[in-house]
Amino acid sequence: MSKMDQNLPLITDVEGVYANGISIGIKQPAKKDLALIYVPDAFSSAGVFTTNRFAAPSVSHTRKILKSNTLKALLINSGNANTGIGKDGSENTKELVARTAKHLNLRSSEVGMGSTGIIGVPLTMDTMRNGVDTLLNDPLIKDGHAAAEAILTTDTFVKEFGSKTIIDGKEIIVAGITKGSGMIEPNMATTLTYLVTNAAIPTKELNTYLKEAVDQSYNLISVDSDMSTSDMVVIISTGEHKLKLFDLEQRHAFKDALTDTCKELAKLVVKDGEGATKVIEVTVEGATSFSEARLIAKSVVNSPLVKTAVYGEDPNWGRVLMAAGKVPSKLNPDKCEVRFGSEIVFSKGIACTFDEKVVKKDLSHSEVKINVNLNLGKHSATVLGCDLTEGYIKINTDYN
Amino acid sequence: MSKMDQNLPLITDVEGVYANGISIGIKQPAKKDLALIYVPDAFSSAGVFTTNRFAAPSVSHTRKILKSNTLKALLINSGNANTGIGKDGSENTKELVARTAKHLNLRSSEVGMGSTGIIGVPLTMDTMRNGVDTLLNDPLIKDGHAAAEAILTTDTFVKEFGSKTIIDGKEIIVAGITKGSGMIEPNMATTLTYLVTNAAIPTKELNTYLKEAVDQSYNLISVDSDMSTSDMVVIISTGEHKLKLFDLEQRHAFKDALTDTCKELAKLVVKDGEGATKVIEVTVEGATSFSEARLIAKSVVNSPLVKTAVYGEDPNWGRVLMAAGKVPSKLNPDKCEVRFGSEIVFSKGIACTFDEKVVKKDLSHSEVKINVNLNLGKHSATVLGCDLTEGYIKINTDYN
Repeated sequence: MSKMDQNLPLITDVEGVYANGISIGIKQPAKKDLALIYVPDAFSSAGVFTTNRFAAPSVSHTRKILKSNTLKALLINSGNANTGIGKDGSENTKELVARTAKHLNLRSSEVGMGSTGIIGVPLTMDTMRNGVDTLLNDPLIKDGHAAAEAILTTDTFVKEFGSKTIIDGKEIIVAGITKGSGMIEPNMATTLTYLVTNAAIPTKELNTYLKEAVDQSYNLISVDSDMSTSDMVVIISTGEHKLKLFDLEQRHAFKDALTDTCKELAKLVVKDGEGATKVIEVTVEGATSFSEARLIAKSVVNSPLVKTAVYGEDPNWGRVLMAAGKVPSKLNPDKCEVRFGSEIVFSKGIACTFDEKVVKKDLSHSEVKINVNLNLGKHSATVLGCDLTEGYIKINTDYN
Repeated sequence: MSKMDQNLPLITDVEGVYANGISIGIKQPAKKDLALIYVPDAFSSAGVFTTNRFAAPSVSHTRKILKSNTLKALLINSGNANTGIGKDGSENTKELVARTAKHLNLRSSEVGMGSTGIIGVPLTMDTMRNGVDTLLNDPLIKDGHAAAEAILTTDTFVKEFGSKTIIDGKEIIVAGITKGSGMIEPNMATTLTYLVTNAAIPTKELNTYLKEAVDQSYNLISVDSDMSTSDMVVIISTGEHKLKLFDLEQRHAFKDALTDTCKELAKLVVKDGEGATKVIEVTVEGATSFSEARLIAKSVVNSPLVKTAVYGEDPNWGRVLMAAGKVPSKLNPDKCEVRFGSEIVFSKGIACTFDEKVVKKDLSHSEVKINVNLNLGKHSATVLGCDLTEGYIKINTDYN
């Protein structure tokens, strides 16, 4: 998993996108920890950010400038989240953004920033300043993989995905890099995602499409129900290929490409969930609304009892019912059906006789599917999560 | 902990309350698994029940009859929850309640029932019928401890608490038994609580006071955020001592006694949390409302990252901030203060220097206090939870 599948485009496979990642000494032992994504002729940009009340300075800055500017560069450091240190945090971000802007002859309002890693510990600014100068010495390098590596914290593999779709006779690329959860003391799970596309989508539409794509991907995954203070998903368009967005087919084709890329990236984050041995895919069907389906699916995928049952490879439908029933909904037990893989284990209020061998085999795979049909309406939602193991406890207890 | 503290009253220390528990063979290996609480001259009764959409037949029955009747007896079996088996479940409950009522010369609408244990497996009704006949052969036994033992599932100790308060010159007793979470395949965490009092509180007031007491106790504890389909808290009054409830002081004295008893019982449930090594007490102060304080406190106490940090005895305030910030509230990081035990670790946006030895010592205790002051308003809430350990994973994975 440390390399891309053969033909999938990297972010730097998009014309006009430059990226690189280097080791500057923030992370100890030394690993790549400073990344640049540079799109000198960016056409538009958009972002979705954490709703956590404790937003990091990097989030506040990038969210703010995106409101009225097009991002042309992103500086991302890992190893230190530059937050929980009072006003110094915002001053650091301001200075590093300005330094990067100066190197690129941009305004500070065109340079976004991401920071992930330890919190509450001052950022070594001399190291950062030297690092920025080194990295920006040649900003026209096309090494998306190095950038993807430099944004990681305790991730166990590099996470990249890209797609190519022919729309209106043009080869439209949507490619991205992402990082998943990782805890180092005293830190928290953080998801950073940076996407680029060669489709010329105006800012307003790009914001709408990105929000919808995140709702269908990153907002449908869960490692441990905790939400980071630094989460962000940002996309930059190079504007290479104009699309006819008023054309329903073209619009949907782009939105699907964006959503699918986000889904694949989000899935990589779940796969690398701390201590996880299995991805759990919970689908709730027959709901009266999408939000009802999602609420129930999230409740199931986040239930510690369901997560441990999956880890133990046990088709414990009782726990699934409990988790489905504990959130407010129109659910009626006498109409419900629960499946593990292909086998129906509970139907209309009654436990079913099922082939235990078949279910046990389904549960032994690295991806486990649980399906709850409410038989009430036409809406459905699928949420991805992972099992809960001794590994999670170990990683999050013994990180010192 | 298997016996009461010396002078605390048991439920059967209340005049006119009879209780007993016996082994009838539902649990294998054999343990006490059928309990009776009998208050022939009950004055009033009240109950609070699970809001889970999958309510067990015992919950549906008891909730229904409490609306227009005074409970005079409760039959509780452990080892099988009699749910997830379709209509058979309600028919079993109906028959067992009728059988108990007949023995006691009561109407079925005066007999409540509780069932906890495995779900989706038919209840062996012959065993139950014989058990009811044996237990009801002498319903006038005063062995509250045996009843407390008979309602347990995977609890590791018997849970009883009682208080005596002099109100208006009368010795008012509020005593109860409770059981905590326990998983046997395919089962779920269940809390059953049965209380008695010799104070003559009319039904309407008793319902109000019980709801308030549960809000301040059972609704402020959390083992793993999962909610059972069988949860119930029921109280019966013998009516022995009339109080002047229009007198604010007397009313509050009774409510406090009831709330305190529920709090102590709820604490026993947390202490016995699966795999738990520490009780975590999270207090959120300075909130703009009680519900805001409770929402944030619950978010902190339920965070897997906070729970593992406490297990690892690490004052990881970053995780506390993350968990506090992830729910909607008026929280402002620049006004927040976080304490572990007595030490301030974060204040107004900045990590504080603290005495690590003092904090580490606080965290080594079996009860760990975390305090978050929002410095916004006057409301506060305290929630109890427990740490997350390999023991939890083991119990919930290897229960087969």
